[in-house]
Amino acid sequence: MATPAKVYGPTLSTAVSRVLACLVEKDVQFQLIPLNMSKGEHKKPDFLKIHPFGQVPAFEDESISLFESRAICRYICEKHPEKGNKALYGTNPLAKASIDQWLEAEGQSFNPPSSVLVFQLAFAPRMKIKQDEGAINLNGEKLAKVLDVYDRRLGESRFLAGDEFSLADLSHLPNTQYLMSTEKGELFTSRKNVSRWWSEISTRDSWKQVVDMQKNKN
Amino acid sequence: MATPAKVYGPTLSTAVSRVLACLVEKDVQFQLIPLNMSKGEHKKPDFLKIHPFGQVPAFEDESISLFESRAICRYICEKHPEKGNKALYGTNPLAKASIDQWLEAEGQSFNPPSSVLVFQLAFAPRMKIKQDEGAINLNGEKLAKVLDVYDRRLGESRFLAGDEFSLADLSHLPNTQYLMSTEKGELFTSRKNVSRWWSEISTRDSWKQVVDMQKNKN
Repeated sequence: MATPAKVYGPTLSTAVSRVLACLVEKDVQFQLIPLNMSKGEHKKPDFLKIHPFGQVPAFEDESISLFESRAICRYICEKHPEKGNKALYGTNPLAKASIDQWLEAEGQSFNPPSSVLVFQLAFAPRMKIKQDEGAINLNGEKLAKVLDVYDRRLGESRFLAGDEFSLADLSHLPNTQYLMSTEKGELFTSRKNVSRWWSEISTRDSWKQVVDMQKNKN
Repeated sequence: MATPAKVYGPTLSTAVSRVLACLVEKDVQFQLIPLNMSKGEHKKPDFLKIHPFGQVPAFEDESISLFESRAICRYICEKHPEKGNKALYGTNPLAKASIDQWLEAEGQSFNPPSSVLVFQLAFAPRMKIKQDEGAINLNGEKLAKVLDVYDRRLGESRFLAGDEFSLADLSHLPNTQYLMSTEKGELFTSRKNVSRWWSEISTRDSWKQVVDMQKNKN
């Protein structure tokens, strides 16, 4: 039997939980290796060999070690085309191109403002760091513009890349999960199609499993 | 004969020139459709049908329309595996995973600070916009940290993803080209391995063709 893939990092990290959601969706066995970031374990020489930027997650299986959550998700799907959700990264080149397009939109347009908001609204209070009101307002406005585009898209398409749930949708789960319990959750619930989409993607069994893992560990 | 692919946008845009470099490298015919952004042509309803965010580039060929430069590059490589540079997006799953990893590192770590610097140091003076010294200093420091990681990587590997020039290297060409003619070019030339890598990738015929296109049009 093959050794399970290893995922390094705390489940509370949005990038780590992106990879976990993909692994569960693809029904790929894995071993979670916690990393105590407050003790600087992500900056130690052994870890820097796997992740030269000293961030999380890092990923290893029998043939490769990788960093960057979206690249890890692509690799998991390419390696296991026949396991779990076969449509997660598309079953033909045009579907895949549409998924890549919306996965890039997530990485380039949705993630920058939503990550700032996750930090400011969800993590800063836990870490007793003073919130930056200017950053919250500016990034709330930026995110609203992105969600206006999403709302039009999701008015004509069930999921971002087409008729099937894909990596493009999945990649939005971690940041949105945090934002839904903050004042900025309204950015999602106030938009009809975005709200319908969020209800659908966030209630998938795979994501509920990841949220449970986040509640039980850190 | 197939209709050439269409690329919409000004060649001076870094994201447009990323796609052009990929098309030339893959020896794929294309038609460049200029877009006058100062006249707001990227915000008109017809263009928003191809690019819902109203940005550049947008891409069309006989079977699909796409936005997001890195997704377009992936699609071009997937569609034409046997044309031009066959190694550009890897010739096996492990090579491809390494390319995806460093292409994500470019998009997530290199691009944010380098884009700010390109705007502040190259575009703001042309547009007669006042430069933001704070943003220049902050993003210079962020970029230096990214290039420290690159310098170590390029001390053990000829190119970012391995022994072959790939999409991961190509994706760095547009921003770096602008920065090399500014005060921040020193961030690249002062690092031995980054400097060697830049000399090698920027003198490829494909990139020289794109730079010529930038000089002749806008």
